[in-house]
Amino acid sequence: MSIRVAVIGAKGRMGSHAVDAINNAEGLELVAALGSSDSLETLLDQNIDVAVELTVPKSTEDNVTFLVENGIDTVVGTTGWDNDRLARLESTLKDHPKTAVLIAPNFSIGAVLAMRFAELAAPYFDSAEVVEIHHTRKLDAPSGTANHTAQRIAAARNAAGLPAVPDSTESDPQGARGAVIDGIHVHAIRQQGMNAHEEILFGSDGEALTIRTDSHSTSAFMPGIVTAVRSIADYTGLIHGLENMLDL
Amino acid sequence: MSIRVAVIGAKGRMGSHAVDAINNAEGLELVAALGSSDSLETLLDQNIDVAVELTVPKSTEDNVTFLVENGIDTVVGTTGWDNDRLARLESTLKDHPKTAVLIAPNFSIGAVLAMRFAELAAPYFDSAEVVEIHHTRKLDAPSGTANHTAQRIAAARNAAGLPAVPDSTESDPQGARGAVIDGIHVHAIRQQGMNAHEEILFGSDGEALTIRTDSHSTSAFMPGIVTAVRSIADYTGLIHGLENMLDL
Amino acid sequence: MSIRVAVIGAKGRMGSHAVDAINNAEGLELVAALGSSDSLETLLDQNIDVAVELTVPKSTEDNVTFLVENGIDTVVGTTGWDNDRLARLESTLKDHPKTAVLIAPNFSIGAVLAMRFAELAAPYFDSAEVVEIHHTRKLDAPSGTANHTAQRIAAARNAAGLPAVPDSTESDPQGARGAVIDGIHVHAIRQQGMNAHEEILFGSDGEALTIRTDSHSTSAFMPGIVTAVRSIADYTGLIHGLENMLDL
Amino acid sequence: MSIRVAVIGAKGRMGSHAVDAINNAEGLELVAALGSSDSLETLLDQNIDVAVELTVPKSTEDNVTFLVENGIDTVVGTTGWDNDRLARLESTLKDHPKTAVLIAPNFSIGAVLAMRFAELAAPYFDSAEVVEIHHTRKLDAPSGTANHTAQRIAAARNAAGLPAVPDSTESDPQGARGAVIDGIHVHAIRQQGMNAHEEILFGSDGEALTIRTDSHSTSAFMPGIVTAVRSIADYTGLIHGLENMLDL
Repeated sequence: MSIRVAVIGAKGRMGSHAVDAINNAEGLELVAALGSSDSLETLLDQNIDVAVELTVPKSTEDNVTFLVENGIDTVVGTTGWDNDRLARLESTLKDHPKTAVLIAPNFSIGAVLAMRFAELAAPYFDSAEVVEIHHTRKLDAPSGTANHTAQRIAAARNAAGLPAVPDSTESDPQGARGAVIDGIHVHAIRQQGMNAHEEILFGSDGEALTIRTDSHSTSAFMPGIVTAVRSIADYTGLIHGLENMLDL
Repeated sequence: MSIRVAVIGAKGRMGSHAVDAINNAEGLELVAALGSSDSLETLLDQNIDVAVELTVPKSTEDNVTFLVENGIDTVVGTTGWDNDRLARLESTLKDHPKTAVLIAPNFSIGAVLAMRFAELAAPYFDSAEVVEIHHTRKLDAPSGTANHTAQRIAAARNAAGLPAVPDSTESDPQGARGAVIDGIHVHAIRQQGMNAHEEILFGSDGEALTIRTDSHSTSAFMPGIVTAVRSIADYTGLIHGLENMLDL
Repeated sequence: MSIRVAVIGAKGRMGSHAVDAINNAEGLELVAALGSSDSLETLLDQNIDVAVELTVPKSTEDNVTFLVENGIDTVVGTTGWDNDRLARLESTLKDHPKTAVLIAPNFSIGAVLAMRFAELAAPYFDSAEVVEIHHTRKLDAPSGTANHTAQRIAAARNAAGLPAVPDSTESDPQGARGAVIDGIHVHAIRQQGMNAHEEILFGSDGEALTIRTDSHSTSAFMPGIVTAVRSIADYTGLIHGLENMLDL
Repeated sequence: MSIRVAVIGAKGRMGSHAVDAINNAEGLELVAALGSSDSLETLLDQNIDVAVELTVPKSTEDNVTFLVENGIDTVVGTTGWDNDRLARLESTLKDHPKTAVLIAPNFSIGAVLAMRFAELAAPYFDSAEVVEIHHTRKLDAPSGTANHTAQRIAAARNAAGLPAVPDSTESDPQGARGAVIDGIHVHAIRQQGMNAHEEILFGSDGEALTIRTDSHSTSAFMPGIVTAVRSIADYTGLIHGLENMLDL
């Protein structure tokens, strides 16, 4: 029996990719694809198992609240979920204890795995740095993913009792050593023709470990969304981060 | 209180690096460094906690048997441990239930982590291939590590129910697609100036994950040996593979 | 004054990208975009400076002949130009000595530069190997570009009097060492989510030089086409390969 | 007939490698290997063709002056040649018009080629950035090579009339975008276990070209020194930079 899926925000860039991905995924059946002018009420008599919410920050909380209140498990890819919103959502979920919501800041399985591997590797190497490459339209540096990766590496090093990374730099007048996030150096490259990429470099005497993840296009997020849709029935409550649904 | 360590095979390339590494490692004390003409009997009144056995295939079994029979935990980096030898060692260890022996085919922590991460990532990507680069004196291709990595990727894919890797190749008259180990393509490069390197490539629509490990020199194995020496007191019996002593 | 450009084969994948690229390129004016049902005769009263021919192997020779006979410089991206066709084209060009035709097997400037750099570097390194990565729909291995790169490396090594690449491999039961093209090992990887990529590895004692080129999409060929359209007025006769129009 | 070579500074790290390299190089004969306490006078009756000067900044000028005055072609790997010293050397060379001196800041052929290729590629790509990786004992960032590479890329872009690299960064509170040298972003990584490495990244719509050079050890400089010793007889006067002796 197929999992019955609705996509909310089906006309956007992520949404239209998600419609295709769900149509092509074995075991999933797309039964609704709502645009911004469609009412969520229409979902109620369609026996939806899972909703995929890919709208905009200002709509996402209302949409997710409605879906939870109607007992529909929801996979959320929209940003804008600050701590206040998350607290209200957790409270709503308490009244619907069989329902699950996944909020994932990054649906790239490669990026999620890379971050987890970085955390596992961090205690075993003297040096660790992060390099991210993004398209030239990006407004901020470093990327949220690179920032978060550095924080997790730093936390893993601290937990293992490692000292600061070795660095003898005395002269760096122009800032070539990059940003320092919790003691980990982070470098941001902006390159025409690229999309979203991260390289994590670990080094000790005589050896190196490098983990690289490349998201060439929006389609990179679809395997993560499909995995989440397939798995969410096994969960209840709020799940934060796709890594919690991977078998790591 | 320091861990008291003996190095057996201290004059060889690995052994002399190990002597230096143990001398420099906090919490370890080198109390004996035996060459091929020294008798292991001299260790018995020195209160050795851990022996590091780095000799040659024809001596290693006798050495390890002696050490186990005298209740000394042993970290073994010598090759040549076939199934018969391992069976005899397990039997000896049964009579010395408090003693532990680690037999590790690869003491590079980077290589061990890379293999483990490859196994964890394998279920989430359509494509997987392995490339290894070694110095030009290497006699066999592909390397044992690349071979083993491919086998573990294949096993993880099978366990997750993945189909064969996608490949439309119809014409490959010269064998550019490389070796196929359990369905995973493996490529071996031989390059002057390199030592031992492995790159594992995973791909799905729009995304890639690449894990690379570089062992530039023999010193790459020392952090693994030091980690094993520090940890082996927590174990008993036969441990096969350094990965079992890492926190993964 | 703008260069007046016609695209022949404007409805195909390459052609439609070319239409966009020419529309966006400073100094170029798109004055005709012909599909397969349009007659080339319509070009004759439009004062075309340069035609871009991106059709199919069976049409390309007739199209190019017509264009040359009408004195229109032509940039050809269609495949299928064997030696017989090239000979006939050279003969036609002799009767039209002011007209130029560029036939380019690869319009990726990155790939063209990488090949040229490989040729320049080849005499200075003991080892050289080529790795190509392509999408999983590709039917042949290795790619034409990788094959051609290996041939040019081999020729440059021979011209410099270098011996064979060092390789001690005695055992390679499954062919992990890949294809051997003129003495240079070539490896082909097929990976979901990738497009067309080549890595050229050079090594000597203690040092390595690596040249990598990535074509993520059809748009990768457009800068090459635009460069050719801008430059072709400076040439006459048959030019074979985009590298002849770059300042190397 | 062999080229007769003297190494000055033969006991240092570079010098002892050079002695080995010259002993192993076909067509070269090592006839003198002087340490810091040996007098250069001893060279005069030994019919030296080429001297390799690998001493320290405070000795190098006196040594080179002596060698030039005695008509011995000299390959100099010592640093410390500021503009004043170079001017005095050029003046001395005018009185000895048949003698040649090569002063090379970098004898890694890979690094020299990478810089030259970067310069050739620069006009053809919208984006260009430089990443260097060095050991953790390095005091300054970025490396001289990375700095010089960025300057040459910038000059080549300017000569070709390219605009500034595209970059939309509005927020970079910690300096993740690195140093900016003549408009080119340069990033410096410090990693335990590495030696000297540089990666040059070029990008345009849909395509990338990456040039990477790795110097794993001092031996990386020997092919450059041997090449210079073999070629210097074809030159007179001051040659600045090994690239002038390569066939590029």
